[in-house]
Amino acid sequence: MKLNENEYYLITDSKLSKKGTLSDVENALKAGCKIIQYREKNKSTKDMIKEAKELKKKCGRKAIFLVNDRVDVALAVDSDGIHIGQDDIPFGIARRILGNEKIIGLTVHNLEEAVNAQEIGADYIGLSPIFETSTKNDAGTACGVEMIKKVREGVNLSIGWD
Amino acid sequence: MKLNENEYYLITDSKLSKKGTLSDVENALKAGCKIIQYREKNKSTKDMIKEAKELKKKCGRKAIFLVNDRVDVALAVDSDGIHIGQDDIPFGIARRILGNEKIIGLTVHNLEEAVNAQEIGADYIGLSPIFETSTKNDAGTACGVEMIKKVREGVNLSIGWD
Repeated sequence: MKLNENEYYLITDSKLSKKGTLSDVENALKAGCKIIQYREKNKSTKDMIKEAKELKKKCGRKAIFLVNDRVDVALAVDSDGIHIGQDDIPFGIARRILGNEKIIGLTVHNLEEAVNAQEIGADYIGLSPIFETSTKNDAGTACGVEMIKKVREGVNLSIGWD
Repeated sequence: MKLNENEYYLITDSKLSKKGTLSDVENALKAGCKIIQYREKNKSTKDMIKEAKELKKKCGRKAIFLVNDRVDVALAVDSDGIHIGQDDIPFGIARRILGNEKIIGLTVHNLEEAVNAQEIGADYIGLSPIFETSTKNDAGTACGVEMIKKVREGVNLSIGWD
Protein backbone atom coordinates (compact mmCIF):
# COMPACT_ATOMS: atom_id res chain seq x y z
CA MET A 1 0.00 0.00 0.00
CA LYS A 2 1.41 3.39 -1.00
CA LEU A 3 1.45 6.56 1.05
CA ASN A 4 -0.81 9.23 -0.32
CA GLU A 5 -0.51 12.71 1.07
CA ASN A 6 -4.16 13.63 0.71
CA GLU A 7 -5.41 11.18 3.30
CA TYR A 8 -6.24 11.29 6.96
CA TYR A 9 -3.72 9.78 9.33
CA LEU A 10 -4.68 8.71 12.86
CA ILE A 11 -2.16 8.52 15.72
CA THR A 12 -3.61 6.48 18.58
CA ASP A 13 -3.28 7.70 22.17
CA SER A 14 -4.74 5.50 24.88
CA LYS A 15 -4.27 8.26 27.44
CA LEU A 16 -6.52 10.65 25.51
CA SER A 17 -8.95 7.99 24.32
CA LYS A 18 -12.39 7.72 25.87
CA LYS A 19 -13.51 4.48 24.25
CA GLY A 20 -10.14 2.79 23.83
CA THR A 21 -7.67 2.43 20.99
CA LEU A 22 -9.48 -0.37 19.17
CA SER A 23 -12.74 1.60 19.07
CA ASP A 24 -10.90 4.76 17.95
CA VAL A 25 -9.26 2.90 15.10
CA GLU A 26 -12.54 1.28 14.03
CA ASN A 27 -14.21 4.68 13.90
CA ALA A 28 -11.29 6.23 12.02
CA LEU A 29 -11.39 3.44 9.44
CA LYS A 30 -15.15 3.81 9.03
CA ALA A 31 -14.58 7.53 8.43
CA GLY A 32 -12.11 6.69 5.66
CA CYS A 33 -8.80 7.17 7.45
CA LYS A 34 -6.03 5.55 5.37
CA ILE A 35 -3.07 5.50 7.76
CA ILE A 36 -3.10 4.30 11.37
CA GLN A 37 -0.13 4.84 13.66
CA TYR A 38 -0.24 2.79 16.85
CA ARG A 39 1.44 4.91 19.51
CA GLU A 40 1.47 3.30 22.94
CA LYS A 41 3.90 4.15 25.71
CA ASN A 42 2.29 2.63 28.78
CA LYS A 43 1.55 -1.01 28.15
CA SER A 44 3.62 -4.15 28.52
CA THR A 45 5.23 -5.49 25.36
CA LYS A 46 2.92 -8.49 25.52
CA ASP A 47 -0.19 -6.29 25.62
CA MET A 48 1.16 -4.01 22.89
CA ILE A 49 1.73 -6.93 20.55
CA LYS A 50 -1.73 -8.30 21.28
CA GLU A 51 -3.36 -4.93 20.60
CA ALA A 52 -1.24 -4.20 17.53
CA LYS A 53 -2.25 -7.57 16.06
CA GLU A 54 -5.93 -6.69 16.43
CA LEU A 55 -5.40 -3.24 14.93
CA LYS A 56 -3.48 -4.60 11.97
CA LYS A 57 -6.32 -7.02 11.29
CA LYS A 58 -8.83 -4.16 11.44
CA CYS A 59 -6.74 -2.15 8.97
CA GLY A 60 -6.58 -5.06 6.56
CA ARG A 61 -6.32 -3.66 3.05
CA LYS A 62 -8.19 -0.52 4.01
CA ALA A 63 -5.32 1.34 5.70
CA ILE A 64 -1.56 1.38 6.22
CA PHE A 65 -0.66 0.21 9.72
CA LEU A 66 2.41 1.72 11.36
CA VAL A 67 3.86 1.28 14.86
CA ASN A 68 5.39 4.19 16.74
CA ASP A 69 9.02 3.62 17.76
CA ARG A 70 8.82 -0.06 18.68
CA VAL A 71 10.56 -2.12 16.00
CA ASP A 72 10.02 -5.23 18.14
CA VAL A 73 6.25 -4.75 18.02
CA ALA A 74 6.42 -3.89 14.30
CA LEU A 75 8.31 -7.13 13.59
CA ALA A 76 6.04 -9.15 15.87
CA VAL A 77 2.89 -8.17 13.96
CA ASP A 78 4.49 -7.52 10.56
CA SER A 79 3.22 -3.93 10.38
CA ASP A 80 3.62 -1.92 7.19
CA GLY A 81 6.31 0.09 8.94
CA ILE A 82 7.10 2.39 11.82
CA HIS A 83 7.08 6.05 12.74
CA ILE A 84 9.96 7.43 14.77
CA GLY A 85 10.56 10.64 16.68
CA GLN A 86 13.67 12.20 18.13
CA ASP A 87 13.77 10.02 21.28
CA ASP A 88 13.05 6.78 19.47
CA ILE A 89 15.25 4.19 17.79
CA PRO A 90 17.78 5.91 15.46
CA PHE A 91 16.71 5.85 11.81
CA GLY A 92 19.76 3.95 10.50
CA ILE A 93 19.33 1.14 13.01
CA ALA A 94 15.62 0.87 12.28
CA ARG A 95 16.28 0.70 8.51
CA ARG A 96 18.94 -1.97 9.01
CA ILE A 97 16.57 -4.11 11.08
CA LEU A 98 13.42 -3.57 9.01
CA GLY A 99 14.93 -3.50 5.52
CA ASN A 100 13.94 -1.31 2.57
CA GLU A 101 10.46 -2.70 2.04
CA LYS A 102 9.02 -1.27 5.24
CA ILE A 103 7.81 2.31 5.58
CA ILE A 104 9.79 4.46 8.01
CA GLY A 105 8.38 7.88 8.80
CA LEU A 106 10.26 10.51 10.76
CA THR A 107 9.06 13.41 12.88
CA VAL A 108 10.75 16.69 11.89
CA HIS A 109 10.39 20.22 13.20
CA ASN A 110 11.96 22.37 10.52
CA LEU A 111 13.29 22.46 6.97
CA GLU A 112 16.79 21.35 7.95
CA GLU A 113 15.50 18.19 9.64
CA ALA A 114 13.17 17.57 6.69
CA VAL A 115 16.04 17.73 4.19
CA ASN A 116 18.08 15.41 6.39
CA ALA A 117 15.16 12.97 6.61
CA GLN A 118 15.01 12.87 2.82
CA GLU A 119 18.75 12.32 2.54
CA ILE A 120 18.84 9.40 4.94
CA GLY A 121 15.91 7.69 3.20
CA ALA A 122 12.76 8.39 5.22
CA ASP A 123 9.58 7.37 3.36
CA TYR A 124 7.61 10.33 4.67
CA ILE A 125 7.91 13.02 7.29
CA GLY A 126 5.60 14.16 10.04
CA LEU A 127 5.93 17.90 10.56
CA SER A 128 5.02 18.67 14.11
CA PRO A 129 3.71 20.54 15.96
CA ILE A 130 2.17 23.10 13.62
CA PHE A 131 0.07 24.50 16.45
CA GLU A 132 0.57 24.73 20.20
CA THR A 133 -0.47 21.50 21.91
CA SER A 134 -1.30 20.53 25.47
CA THR A 135 -1.65 16.80 24.75
CA LYS A 136 1.97 15.93 24.01
CA ASN A 137 4.51 17.19 26.53
CA ASP A 138 7.57 16.57 24.39
CA ALA A 139 6.16 18.02 21.17
CA GLY A 140 8.39 21.09 21.21
CA THR A 141 7.64 24.63 19.99
CA ALA A 142 4.86 25.15 17.45
CA CYS A 143 6.32 25.89 14.01
CA GLY A 144 3.20 27.43 12.41
CA VAL A 145 1.47 26.78 9.08
CA GLU A 146 4.11 28.68 7.10
CA MET A 147 6.50 25.83 7.86
CA ILE A 148 4.38 23.42 5.82
CA LYS A 149 4.90 25.53 2.69
CA LYS A 150 8.60 25.94 3.38
CA VAL A 151 9.17 22.22 3.89
CA ARG A 152 7.00 21.31 0.90
CA GLU A 153 9.20 23.48 -1.31
CA GLY A 154 12.38 22.05 0.18
CA VAL A 155 11.80 18.31 0.01
CA ASN A 156 10.20 15.76 -2.29
CA LEU A 157 8.58 13.61 0.39
CA SER A 158 5.03 13.02 1.57
CA ILE A 159 4.40 15.31 4.50
CA GLY A 160 2.00 14.79 7.37
CA TRP A 161 1.34 17.39 10.04
CA ASP A 162 -0.54 17.85 13.28
CA MET B 1 29.90 -17.67 24.88
CA LYS B 2 28.14 -20.53 26.67
CA LEU B 3 25.89 -20.30 29.68
CA ASN B 4 27.42 -21.81 32.77
CA GLU B 5 25.20 -22.34 35.76
CA ASN B 6 27.88 -21.74 38.36
CA GLU B 7 28.32 -18.08 37.59
CA TYR B 8 26.95 -14.83 38.95
CA TYR B 9 24.29 -13.12 36.89
CA LEU B 10 23.55 -9.40 37.29
CA ILE B 11 20.17 -7.87 36.44
CA THR B 12 20.47 -4.09 36.17
CA ASP B 13 17.89 -1.83 37.78
CA SER B 14 18.36 1.90 37.35
CA LYS B 15 15.65 2.60 39.92
CA LEU B 16 17.55 0.74 42.66
CA SER B 17 21.00 1.83 41.51
CA LYS B 18 22.92 4.47 43.44
CA LYS B 19 25.79 5.00 41.01
CA GLY B 20 24.01 4.21 37.77
CA THR B 21 23.77 1.17 35.54
CA LEU B 22 27.13 1.58 33.81
CA SER B 23 28.97 1.77 37.13
CA ASP B 24 27.04 -1.22 38.51
CA VAL B 25 27.95 -3.30 35.47
CA GLU B 26 31.61 -2.28 35.65
CA ASN B 27 31.75 -3.33 39.28
CA ALA B 28 29.96 -6.60 38.61
CA LEU B 29 32.40 -7.43 35.79
CA LYS B 30 35.36 -6.59 38.01
CA ALA B 31 33.94 -8.95 40.61
CA GLY B 32 33.81 -11.73 38.00
CA CYS B 33 30.15 -11.66 37.02
CA LYS B 34 29.70 -13.60 33.78
CA ILE B 35 26.17 -12.70 32.70
CA ILE B 36 24.71 -9.20 32.53
CA GLN B 37 21.02 -8.62 31.90
CA TYR B 38 20.13 -5.04 30.98
CA ARG B 39 16.67 -4.42 32.41
CA GLU B 40 15.39 -0.90 31.84
CA LYS B 41 11.76 0.10 31.85
CA ASN B 42 11.89 3.88 32.13
CA LYS B 43 14.10 5.29 29.41
CA SER B 44 13.43 6.27 25.81
CA THR B 45 14.36 3.71 23.16
CA LYS B 46 17.11 6.02 21.98
CA ASP B 47 18.67 6.22 25.45
CA MET B 48 18.27 2.48 26.01
CA ILE B 49 20.11 1.69 22.79
CA LYS B 50 22.87 4.13 23.68
CA GLU B 51 23.28 2.63 27.15
CA ALA B 52 23.02 -0.96 25.94
CA LYS B 53 25.79 -0.30 23.39
CA GLU B 54 28.11 0.92 26.15
CA LEU B 55 27.27 -2.05 28.37
CA LYS B 56 27.85 -4.54 25.57
CA LYS B 57 31.26 -3.00 24.95
CA LYS B 58 32.09 -3.28 28.67
CA CYS B 59 31.07 -6.95 28.66
CA GLY B 60 33.28 -7.66 25.64
CA ARG B 61 34.43 -11.26 25.87
CA LYS B 62 34.23 -11.24 29.65
CA ALA B 63 30.48 -11.71 30.03
CA ILE B 64 27.31 -12.62 28.18
CA PHE B 65 25.18 -9.56 27.52
CA LEU B 66 21.39 -9.99 27.50
CA VAL B 67 18.58 -7.45 27.13
CA ASN B 68 15.37 -7.78 29.11
CA ASP B 69 12.24 -7.99 26.95
CA ARG B 70 13.21 -5.49 24.23
CA VAL B 71 14.03 -7.36 21.03
CA ASP B 72 14.42 -4.01 19.25
CA VAL B 73 17.21 -2.98 21.62
CA ALA B 74 18.74 -6.47 21.41
CA LEU B 75 18.83 -6.28 17.60
CA ALA B 76 20.09 -2.69 17.65
CA VAL B 77 23.17 -3.57 19.72
CA ASP B 78 23.51 -7.22 18.66
CA SER B 79 23.31 -8.53 22.21
CA ASP B 80 23.98 -12.20 22.94
CA GLY B 81 20.27 -12.62 23.56
CA ILE B 82 17.31 -11.60 25.65
CA HIS B 83 15.54 -12.48 28.85
CA ILE B 84 11.75 -12.49 28.90
CA GLY B 85 9.13 -12.59 31.62
CA GLN B 86 5.42 -13.21 31.56
CA ASP B 87 4.43 -9.70 30.41
CA ASP B 88 7.10 -9.45 27.75
CA ILE B 89 7.23 -10.43 24.10
CA PRO B 90 5.91 -14.00 23.65
CA PHE B 91 8.70 -16.58 23.36
CA GLY B 92 7.73 -17.89 19.91
CA ILE B 93 7.72 -14.42 18.38
CA ALA B 94 11.06 -13.57 19.98
CA ARG B 95 12.61 -16.80 18.66
CA ARG B 96 11.28 -16.15 15.15
CA ILE B 97 12.75 -12.63 15.12
CA LEU B 98 16.08 -13.45 16.79
CA GLY B 99 16.74 -16.88 15.28
CA ASN B 100 18.29 -19.92 16.95
CA GLU B 101 21.76 -18.48 17.54
CA LYS B 102 20.64 -16.00 20.19
CA ILE B 103 20.11 -16.91 23.83
CA ILE B 104 16.54 -16.61 25.07
CA GLY B 105 15.98 -17.00 28.80
CA LEU B 106 12.56 -17.26 30.38
CA THR B 107 11.31 -16.43 33.85
CA VAL B 108 9.37 -19.30 35.40
CA HIS B 109 7.70 -19.70 38.78
CA ASN B 110 7.15 -23.43 39.12
CA LEU B 111 7.98 -26.85 37.69
CA GLU B 112 5.15 -26.80 35.15
CA GLU B 113 6.39 -23.53 33.62
CA ALA B 114 9.96 -24.82 33.70
CA VAL B 115 9.03 -27.97 31.76
CA ASN B 116 7.12 -25.85 29.27
CA ALA B 117 10.13 -23.52 28.87
CA GLN B 118 12.29 -26.51 28.04
CA GLU B 119 9.75 -27.85 25.53
CA ILE B 120 9.47 -24.58 23.62
CA GLY B 121 13.23 -24.20 23.41
CA ALA B 122 14.34 -21.73 26.09
CA ASP B 123 18.13 -21.65 26.54
CA TYR B 124 17.90 -21.21 30.29
CA ILE B 125 15.30 -20.40 32.92
CA GLY B 126 15.21 -17.83 35.68
CA LEU B 127 13.36 -19.24 38.67
CA SER B 128 11.91 -16.34 40.55
CA PRO B 129 11.26 -15.21 43.19
CA ILE B 130 12.77 -17.73 45.60
CA PHE B 131 12.38 -15.29 48.47
CA GLU B 132 9.92 -12.50 49.22
CA THR B 133 10.95 -9.27 47.50
CA SER B 134 10.04 -5.63 47.91
CA THR B 135 12.03 -4.42 44.89
CA LYS B 136 9.96 -5.93 42.11
CA ASN B 137 6.21 -5.34 42.34
CA ASP B 138 5.22 -7.90 39.74
CA ALA B 139 7.50 -10.68 40.98
CA GLY B 140 4.65 -12.82 42.33
CA THR B 141 4.61 -15.15 45.34
CA ALA B 142 7.93 -16.47 46.68
CA CYS B 143 8.36 -20.13 45.74
CA GLY B 144 11.05 -21.03 48.31
CA VAL B 145 14.40 -22.84 47.97
CA GLU B 146 12.75 -26.26 47.69
CA MET B 147 11.51 -25.22 44.26
CA ILE B 148 15.10 -25.05 42.95
CA LYS B 149 15.61 -28.74 43.73
CA LYS B 150 12.24 -29.68 42.27
CA VAL B 151 12.87 -27.79 39.01
CA ARG B 152 16.44 -29.06 38.76
CA GLU B 153 15.16 -32.62 38.89
CA GLY B 154 12.43 -31.90 36.37
CA VAL B 155 14.32 -30.13 33.58
CA ASN B 156 17.66 -30.30 31.85
CA LEU B 157 18.26 -26.55 31.53
CA SER B 158 20.56 -24.04 33.18
CA ILE B 159 18.67 -22.46 36.04
CA GLY B 160 19.19 -19.03 37.51
CA TRP B 161 17.35 -17.78 40.57
CA ASP B 162 16.88 -14.68 42.67
